[in-house]
Amino acid sequence: MKVLIVLAHPEPQSFNGSLFKVSINELKAQGHEVKTSDLYSMKWKSEIDREDFLSLSPDARLKPAFASGEAYATGNLTEDVKIEQEKLLWADAVLIHFPLWWYSMPAILKGWIERVFSMGFAYGLGEYNDKHFGNRYGEGPFVGKRAMLVVTIGGRKEHYSARGIAGPLDDLLFPINHGVLYYPGFDVLPSHVIYRTDKLDEVGFEREAEVLREKLRQLDTIEPIAYRPQNGGDYELPSLLLKPGLEEDNTSGFSLHVRKTREAECK
Amino acid sequence: MKVLIVLAHPEPQSFNGSLFKVSINELKAQGHEVKTSDLYSMKWKSEIDREDFLSLSPDARLKPAFASGEAYATGNLTEDVKIEQEKLLWADAVLIHFPLWWYSMPAILKGWIERVFSMGFAYGLGEYNDKHFGNRYGEGPFVGKRAMLVVTIGGRKEHYSARGIAGPLDDLLFPINHGVLYYPGFDVLPSHVIYRTDKLDEVGFEREAEVLREKLRQLDTIEPIAYRPQNGGDYELPSLLLKPGLEEDNTSGFSLHVRKTREAECK
Repeated sequence: MKVLIVLAHPEPQSFNGSLFKVSINELKAQGHEVKTSDLYSMKWKSEIDREDFLSLSPDARLKPAFASGEAYATGNLTEDVKIEQEKLLWADAVLIHFPLWWYSMPAILKGWIERVFSMGFAYGLGEYNDKHFGNRYGEGPFVGKRAMLVVTIGGRKEHYSARGIAGPLDDLLFPINHGVLYYPGFDVLPSHVIYRTDKLDEVGFEREAEVLREKLRQLDTIEPIAYRPQNGGDYELPSLLLKPGLEEDNTSGFSLHVRKTREAECK
Repeated sequence: MKVLIVLAHPEPQSFNGSLFKVSINELKAQGHEVKTSDLYSMKWKSEIDREDFLSLSPDARLKPAFASGEAYATGNLTEDVKIEQEKLLWADAVLIHFPLWWYSMPAILKGWIERVFSMGFAYGLGEYNDKHFGNRYGEGPFVGKRAMLVVTIGGRKEHYSARGIAGPLDDLLFPINHGVLYYPGFDVLPSHVIYRTDKLDEVGFEREAEVLREKLRQLDTIEPIAYRPQNGGDYELPSLLLKPGLEEDNTSGFSLHVRKTREAECK
């Protein structure tokens, strides 16, 4: 496989920086091709702004989404963005390594999404009408590609469990896994998470590195999260409300949008 | 009241830029004192990195949280961060205006949180032991201050409803409202949300501006979201799991951490 590995951490010697190297080395050792985007070392520009759209008239009102669509269609995106888009098109799988900061991804990684996932490239594709609301959530340009978050967390696992005070980690990551990755068509693998990284010594790091290596050996066979495709029959149109009766166990919130395993298997 | 208004949008002429001016003017008209942080026009630096910690030895490993704690304690944070911290200490209420991009806040705003909410300033306070896990979630430096998100969304309200495909908006905003604002002690008001902003003409804008003005007239009396305080008796220690029996209506996910109104009233 061709694998793009993205890293968002400012310190090469950090737990994240070290784990990034583990992923690179393990995937290469398995014979995969690897490209990387080490955002901090690339000095990635985080803010989407007027400088991203050089062909926009100086007195025109900047509408970032539409400006990105125009610049993508006319080949006028900046070089740094074009290079990242090429990597995404090249990759069969994308790993995204980051520390959970304030219950989400680091700003620099959010800025990578905002600038690289241009309209026309990552979204805004397909017909938009009352019977088909775009090729999104399970359709889109990245269909057939896999994506997985590799997340480090300073806190304790219990605090991120079903009844933990921070909220369930799968829910905290839902806006990324479902909203950023599944939306343009990725098959999203369950996130690889390591807790209490501040407390891990070298032995602990090596243990976690081996767990990650073992996971990476199954990168092409891990079952993706069973999110419901927008155009797969589970949603009313054009409201995009989940059809009555599809929920199970009185679930509410984000988990409504994941099929139970058995239901997924039986389709 | 003293109100800090934060804006994260690159275009002054945008819906967000115009709404920001509505907030400033309305609050001043009511006799409030107003300070602003218009992040794009300030050219806010989004990435927390080594440049933030000038007293860190060049060969020392950068641990962002600990470096921020050290720099805060010794007065060595950068001037731009110190200025924002002063504004937060000054304010009785904080409004944060932003467009929902990829189901979360813009990168530049995430970077404001990461750089301004230093350890020792916004978190890491109070005792950490098996009976008290810090002053967080309802305690902390911002107790007595109010915060409210003012969020614009291009999409349709139904898509963000309880059964909508994007997930319920309150859940999408939970990592910000609960994880970023309630965590250091803010009373978090229900978010003020405007949908389909791309479709609104001037009449539509003026209508929404008036709805916001009306909301701002009640800024000091709106009932905050009834999040459960970490140290208020609802959680086991040190696991910080919600105690058995406190959930209602088989709720799961983030909504576990909000008291039902009647329960909140009866305390």
